[in-house]
Amino acid sequence: MRLAVLGTGMVGNAIATRLVELGHEVTMGSRTAGNERAVAWAATAGERGHAGTFADAAEFGELIFSCIAGVHTLEALDAAGRSHLEGKVIVDVANPLDFTHGMPPTLSVCNTDSLGEQIQRTFPECRVVKALNTMNCSVMVDPASLPGDHVAFVCGSYADAKQEVIALLETFGWPRARVVDLGDIAASRGTEMYVSLWLRLWGAVGGPHFNITLAS
Amino acid sequence: MRLAVLGTGMVGNAIATRLVELGHEVTMGSRTAGNERAVAWAATAGERGHAGTFADAAEFGELIFSCIAGVHTLEALDAAGRSHLEGKVIVDVANPLDFTHGMPPTLSVCNTDSLGEQIQRTFPECRVVKALNTMNCSVMVDPASLPGDHVAFVCGSYADAKQEVIALLETFGWPRARVVDLGDIAASRGTEMYVSLWLRLWGAVGGPHFNITLAS
Repeated sequence: MRLAVLGTGMVGNAIATRLVELGHEVTMGSRTAGNERAVAWAATAGERGHAGTFADAAEFGELIFSCIAGVHTLEALDAAGRSHLEGKVIVDVANPLDFTHGMPPTLSVCNTDSLGEQIQRTFPECRVVKALNTMNCSVMVDPASLPGDHVAFVCGSYADAKQEVIALLETFGWPRARVVDLGDIAASRGTEMYVSLWLRLWGAVGGPHFNITLAS
Repeated sequence: MRLAVLGTGMVGNAIATRLVELGHEVTMGSRTAGNERAVAWAATAGERGHAGTFADAAEFGELIFSCIAGVHTLEALDAAGRSHLEGKVIVDVANPLDFTHGMPPTLSVCNTDSLGEQIQRTFPECRVVKALNTMNCSVMVDPASLPGDHVAFVCGSYADAKQEVIALLETFGWPRARVVDLGDIAASRGTEMYVSLWLRLWGAVGGPHFNITLAS
């Protein structure tokens, strides 16, 4: 499959690398064509890894992972170009963290709206699936690195798009039974607002490599 | 020990009943002296259960469980009377759920503030511990009713108060190792904002009797 990974940070790197390992062709997209981190990633990723602009990546990908800092997601998708996004699934992995008021970050949108909903509203010709934003990238791409039946959440308003993303998550190592479908895209409020607890759990656990399991 | 439980809803009932079972004396407080639900609870609770106003309960209790709907907590504590609260530990079990915009509820305060912090700021002569607000009351008072090492969170800015509350939670059936201290009272933002995810998990799990375990 041909995939776009928008974003050159830790999350984008982890997901793009995992996708190439799984045999996919990946273009990592960034604001500018010669972005050092994207070019460096593509150089180590082998022949299936490419670097380009957001627009290059979005045009290339049949499915798009949005791994940009949440407060910049909408402008990055706008730069990617509506015509390159049309009809595609966007997997929104980001949290709208606002660091402008110091640490810990707050959210730039929450409670009555969410980044996932904003993307879906802004790009109604796409099908947005919120996923993987409740854990560190080390867990996203290697769930077996933690013990127990810890879970990944997906939500979105298009059932077919969620099924497509769940199938991809299975190849990442997430058993289908551990992918919890929370319903429509408005459930993004829940998984994004969880980041406030997650940041405190980081402190309590002593690092970011953890996740949650459901006891029921 | 003499305890106050403010609130006559499901949460107040569950906690007051558990405390009486454990041998404590409990006054359930409500807005008015003759509140039917408080009187009915006291009648079934036996000689260690009493009903009264918020002020009666707060005066009676050496420690205070605040189990009022979160949007009414501050006015209930105000009615309880500052002189009755002074120097005491307040265990804030509530979430500031706002149902005025329909279902699912939103939060009346979040992101840059929380109910826990509001209580601590408004009653600086008290020591506030946020606890148990991340689960249904059936789990709060009977953690063994769910499998696995699921957890309870506490936070607060006074270490001695947290230790006092953790000791009480142990008597509820929470092993100390499963009570996670998230830090100061500002961590209330995290445990309160988690309710948005919790409401969606209710739907996914098929009922409110669940909790989360940490995988690390």
